[in-house]
Amino acid sequence: MSNSIGEKFQITTFGSSHGPAVGAIVDGCPANLELSAEDIQKELDKRKPGTSSVTTPRKEDDEVQILSGIFEGKTDGTPITGIVFNKNQKSKDYSMFKDTPRPSHGDFGWMTKYGNYDYNGGGRGSGRVTIGHVIGGAIAKKLLQTQNIEIISHVTQIGDIKASEKDFDTIKENIEKNPVRCGDLNAAHEMEELILAKKEEGDSVGGIVETIAIGVPAGLGEPVFERLDGDLARILMNIGAVKGVEIGLGFDVASHTASEINDEYQIENDKITTKTNNSGGIMGGMSNGMPIISRIAVKPTPSISKCQNSINLEKMENKKIEIHGRHDPCICPRVTIVAESSTAIVLADHMIRSGFIHPTNLKI
Amino acid sequence: MSNSIGEKFQITTFGSSHGPAVGAIVDGCPANLELSAEDIQKELDKRKPGTSSVTTPRKEDDEVQILSGIFEGKTDGTPITGIVFNKNQKSKDYSMFKDTPRPSHGDFGWMTKYGNYDYNGGGRGSGRVTIGHVIGGAIAKKLLQTQNIEIISHVTQIGDIKASEKDFDTIKENIEKNPVRCGDLNAAHEMEELILAKKEEGDSVGGIVETIAIGVPAGLGEPVFERLDGDLARILMNIGAVKGVEIGLGFDVASHTASEINDEYQIENDKITTKTNNSGGIMGGMSNGMPIISRIAVKPTPSISKCQNSINLEKMENKKIEIHGRHDPCICPRVTIVAESSTAIVLADHMIRSGFIHPTNLKI
Amino acid sequence: MSNSIGEKFQITTFGSSHGPAVGAIVDGCPANLELSAEDIQKELDKRKPGTSSVTTPRKEDDEVQILSGIFEGKTDGTPITGIVFNKNQKSKDYSMFKDTPRPSHGDFGWMTKYGNYDYNGGGRGSGRVTIGHVIGGAIAKKLLQTQNIEIISHVTQIGDIKASEKDFDTIKENIEKNPVRCGDLNAAHEMEELILAKKEEGDSVGGIVETIAIGVPAGLGEPVFERLDGDLARILMNIGAVKGVEIGLGFDVASHTASEINDEYQIENDKITTKTNNSGGIMGGMSNGMPIISRIAVKPTPSISKCQNSINLEKMENKKIEIHGRHDPCICPRVTIVAESSTAIVLADHMIRSGFIHPTNLKI
Amino acid sequence: MSNSIGEKFQITTFGSSHGPAVGAIVDGCPANLELSAEDIQKELDKRKPGTSSVTTPRKEDDEVQILSGIFEGKTDGTPITGIVFNKNQKSKDYSMFKDTPRPSHGDFGWMTKYGNYDYNGGGRGSGRVTIGHVIGGAIAKKLLQTQNIEIISHVTQIGDIKASEKDFDTIKENIEKNPVRCGDLNAAHEMEELILAKKEEGDSVGGIVETIAIGVPAGLGEPVFERLDGDLARILMNIGAVKGVEIGLGFDVASHTASEINDEYQIENDKITTKTNNSGGIMGGMSNGMPIISRIAVKPTPSISKCQNSINLEKMENKKIEIHGRHDPCICPRVTIVAESSTAIVLADHMIRSGFIHPTNLKI
Repeated sequence: MSNSIGEKFQITTFGSSHGPAVGAIVDGCPANLELSAEDIQKELDKRKPGTSSVTTPRKEDDEVQILSGIFEGKTDGTPITGIVFNKNQKSKDYSMFKDTPRPSHGDFGWMTKYGNYDYNGGGRGSGRVTIGHVIGGAIAKKLLQTQNIEIISHVTQIGDIKASEKDFDTIKENIEKNPVRCGDLNAAHEMEELILAKKEEGDSVGGIVETIAIGVPAGLGEPVFERLDGDLARILMNIGAVKGVEIGLGFDVASHTASEINDEYQIENDKITTKTNNSGGIMGGMSNGMPIISRIAVKPTPSISKCQNSINLEKMENKKIEIHGRHDPCICPRVTIVAESSTAIVLADHMIRSGFIHPTNLKI
Repeated sequence: MSNSIGEKFQITTFGSSHGPAVGAIVDGCPANLELSAEDIQKELDKRKPGTSSVTTPRKEDDEVQILSGIFEGKTDGTPITGIVFNKNQKSKDYSMFKDTPRPSHGDFGWMTKYGNYDYNGGGRGSGRVTIGHVIGGAIAKKLLQTQNIEIISHVTQIGDIKASEKDFDTIKENIEKNPVRCGDLNAAHEMEELILAKKEEGDSVGGIVETIAIGVPAGLGEPVFERLDGDLARILMNIGAVKGVEIGLGFDVASHTASEINDEYQIENDKITTKTNNSGGIMGGMSNGMPIISRIAVKPTPSISKCQNSINLEKMENKKIEIHGRHDPCICPRVTIVAESSTAIVLADHMIRSGFIHPTNLKI
Repeated sequence: MSNSIGEKFQITTFGSSHGPAVGAIVDGCPANLELSAEDIQKELDKRKPGTSSVTTPRKEDDEVQILSGIFEGKTDGTPITGIVFNKNQKSKDYSMFKDTPRPSHGDFGWMTKYGNYDYNGGGRGSGRVTIGHVIGGAIAKKLLQTQNIEIISHVTQIGDIKASEKDFDTIKENIEKNPVRCGDLNAAHEMEELILAKKEEGDSVGGIVETIAIGVPAGLGEPVFERLDGDLARILMNIGAVKGVEIGLGFDVASHTASEINDEYQIENDKITTKTNNSGGIMGGMSNGMPIISRIAVKPTPSISKCQNSINLEKMENKKIEIHGRHDPCICPRVTIVAESSTAIVLADHMIRSGFIHPTNLKI
Repeated sequence: MSNSIGEKFQITTFGSSHGPAVGAIVDGCPANLELSAEDIQKELDKRKPGTSSVTTPRKEDDEVQILSGIFEGKTDGTPITGIVFNKNQKSKDYSMFKDTPRPSHGDFGWMTKYGNYDYNGGGRGSGRVTIGHVIGGAIAKKLLQTQNIEIISHVTQIGDIKASEKDFDTIKENIEKNPVRCGDLNAAHEMEELILAKKEEGDSVGGIVETIAIGVPAGLGEPVFERLDGDLARILMNIGAVKGVEIGLGFDVASHTASEINDEYQIENDKITTKTNNSGGIMGGMSNGMPIISRIAVKPTPSISKCQNSINLEKMENKKIEIHGRHDPCICPRVTIVAESSTAIVLADHMIRSGFIHPTNLKI
């Protein structure tokens, strides 16, 4: 199993839903970045459940501690370890899932591949492991801020309800004003109602999360196999529940011609830009200086209380299953911070790899 | 720059459009796989241009030679080098592109990042480098055949025209019967007409390519960061012109509820399957034994003869550009074999990584 | 900075001498290996200081906790995190070392490269970080035991005093009987006296540590660049204080002819062996089934109380330095367990890589 | 099998003794380095056999071609492929080695591990694969020259004859004046006589090769697991025939005290140096600005015409073997250029990794 990602700015995560702790090691962050546990805590609080009607009412006090990598308030070039100890993790009986894989979850893979699967709360397949992503992302974002790069993720679709706001600053402001983390307040209201309706039915609903990064210089990404779009696609598709990734115009390119969607260059005030940004800031696998825009398709949380068909692997027989518990009726609001973190990790890595950030010491 | 992909079955490609040669080294293929240049040539012929009305009329005799890795007709565990020498590569004057990046191409990134860009025919940014992908893919497919895994890619959409055939064997048969490599013969005919119409206008059109892999066992893919879906998304997004990747239901998950799209398990004839395959064969980042289905969004070839706005980087001034030459009016038919190859590379790698294929010797 | 090693069985370590904790993540250990904190504690106790007259009298209660990767007493394929919290780490004033690099220590490199150096107790350059090696090695050794592979390291030279015992079982028994961890009890006694004499003088002394692995099958190691001897040389040379690594006859090969030292094959009782083992179990970079034998040259602990010349980097002027404190007068006895651990990590990695141990699940 | 080394400056080699070609891909060399085939040819000519009485009389015209990575006389950031086509490689019958491993060669490992071994001339286990090292090393050396780093390797011992010259410039001049590539002309003469005497006896003799790199800045090498000494030890130990590696004082540290061998700092003319260089330019795994000095133990060429014991693996019976042919009676002179190349590869990689050379473009 590999639990690491990144070449120069590398994250390794560990831990499972009901084990002693979850966390991440960030290796390769240059020295002399100011960093405190609060910088990470602030981000973790955004993914914390139990904060609104549209997420799970589970309470998890995810308090992070930094165990290494900081000296006198700054990174010192050594690996940074962030850890969250799990609390109250033995409150529930999960034994009915021991031999019975939940539909559209990873259980079946874990069971057949490793043969000793911690089925409690999904084990390492749980969404709780994204705490590691957020720890890594918080550090990446702090590093990117030194280069004036800013990233936000917001919900653009839930069910059939779509948001239409496009302005970066407005979106940034609005996502903090509604529990859905949608950049368009009108749509947000409708989305919230839809989610609550599905929750009532014991069901869940999917959506789309968009991520925008501004301030990224031209030239990130390495052709041929470590392109910026490829690396973003991988880290975003690796988020549980994601079934699609697109950059810029995405799947809409299929129904267009080049003359309709090519991004033409222009010089304005001595700055090179493109008139449109259908490429989403990436051409030929490299950033071109325009905002980097991605969208991910997030499936409805597969854990629902409605009755479903499954099997008992031990007895090799068909079996019905109902998954009770306090599950998110829509995971999109909490996925935003994971998408933001994942994007930040890839950008931080490539900023170092391409020579925009010094690999060992920010003061050089 | 990194030009390698894969952990155990690793491809490194080299070469550019107008340099002496293009090719690939495959490192990590187990010994005792029967392999000849013909096995690779057969695949290369599928991506060769000049074979139909809907692709570029350029003639390229892409003849592969194997320079290492084979002993007595079988792989011997050492790196396999496949090479295609470029011919007639100096036929044209590309100097108008020296300082003028083509819209929606990677030129601008290459120019600003490396500062010594071979602008002839796109250099290493050219589609011609996918010869390396196909060499790697041909070897991967041969290796996967020993495990009864089969892969096909086919065009499912061009512009607004969509194919509807779903049967693997029918698709496999049909793609060889039409120049679009579409699995649905009725749609294929309409697609061909649309492509020719756009060609006539000096324009190009986009589309969607689907890849289906059957026979893949449950348990491929490594949670958390080297999941099968993430690795597929990366390699597919890395293909030039691709702007989106989806697995299974893909972006359609956004508008559904879990009760509508969860894949329920069943036992039929002592075999575990799911009643539906909305997950596209991957749950929790691991294969579940069902067909693995991905789709990529392919943008229209950005090289068009219509007049476009660009800039002169040297003089820092706006400039018009027309890109004449024999470009593909739709790159989708030729992308199919690259998608097929890319998928095969990832699957071969994970089959070894997860212990389904012995890492050094097929006879063990 | 990179703090990871290994491809399939991969260790990532973190932490520094005076930070909150030190530890390691082991990623890639197959599931279903029985493992407890006691298995690791037992090995850590061997490197613990303060246990004899020949090591530092510092007391460090290095108590390990496992934070992830174990389910119902067995590994579950997910990353295993072992951690030791540092205690009493603020007992001393190290400020005199802030700008003054200690001779033959890494301080100067840390200061110039990272610019924010935790000079307390050597920071991450401290020998204390080898706790991470030992955590990784303890798990590797447990895994190798399932394949009947056994490893011991013992001191073969201190100053000019050399040990002569060659029998594996005798050495194994003897190292537990003397504080030097020497396999030859007569030599051990002399070594102890020499170390105590040097300690008395405020000086320290070097030595040689040999590692023997038995039961390793033929065929580990990957020609050309990831050979078994190369990988052993790297991990052993990476141990602080090591200035040389040799395999088998080592540097003595220089003064011999092939006819004197070639290892000839023979068949005895249907088993292939070599009549001699001057190759130390490795030919052409691969194991050949004979015991794998390496030796490392360990320099005298550079921290001594005798007055030495150094410089003040801030003021750029020459400066005298005396390093008081409770330093090991000879680090060799404690290096044995680090060498043993390092060797185990490389062998475990290659056992998986070469297909001798299943990569995901010991039960398959 | 892995045939790559290096993180940012990465070499992948391919080919075997009697296959169509041998060569290397260098991935990660920054753009705008002037480079021609002559730069590589000059280095290859140093390892070419048949040039003196002390090496094999085999004639090999190793003519290199560059197939990719150069545009208008300079690197362009894309992978550089250097290739040497093998000639006359079918001149001899090697069938007696098909099932009979040569003592102290890698044959047995290749046979048991891969099961399809090209036994002709040693296949990929042949010294001929070091052509790939030298191609990579030639490019690395050209890159290091832009930073005023210079590297030489020279023979310091053959049998019991030792060289004593220590001055860099004198050694550099002398190695071109004698066939042994020894820096001390008196010793060189004796070494030559010893080698010829052993050749006469149908035997071979071992020796020691030292490598000195000057101009390396302080701060190369990444603690803990990718230290400069560890990476040098690995690449040097990976050279066939090498059984030991030491840095600085090497194995002599064992018999010294810290007060005797610690390298004390001093400031002279505003420059920080150490009074002695027993550390060989590396402390704590990082370069300290002093010359980097390593030595390798090279065993006598195991192929000798004297009769030896071996086995027939097919029949599982003991068998005598005589290895006739034109083998090097001492491989040390030709190993010098491989050691020089290997050292250059590691230093080039770390110069980029630590930010001393820009990762993409020398002009930035």
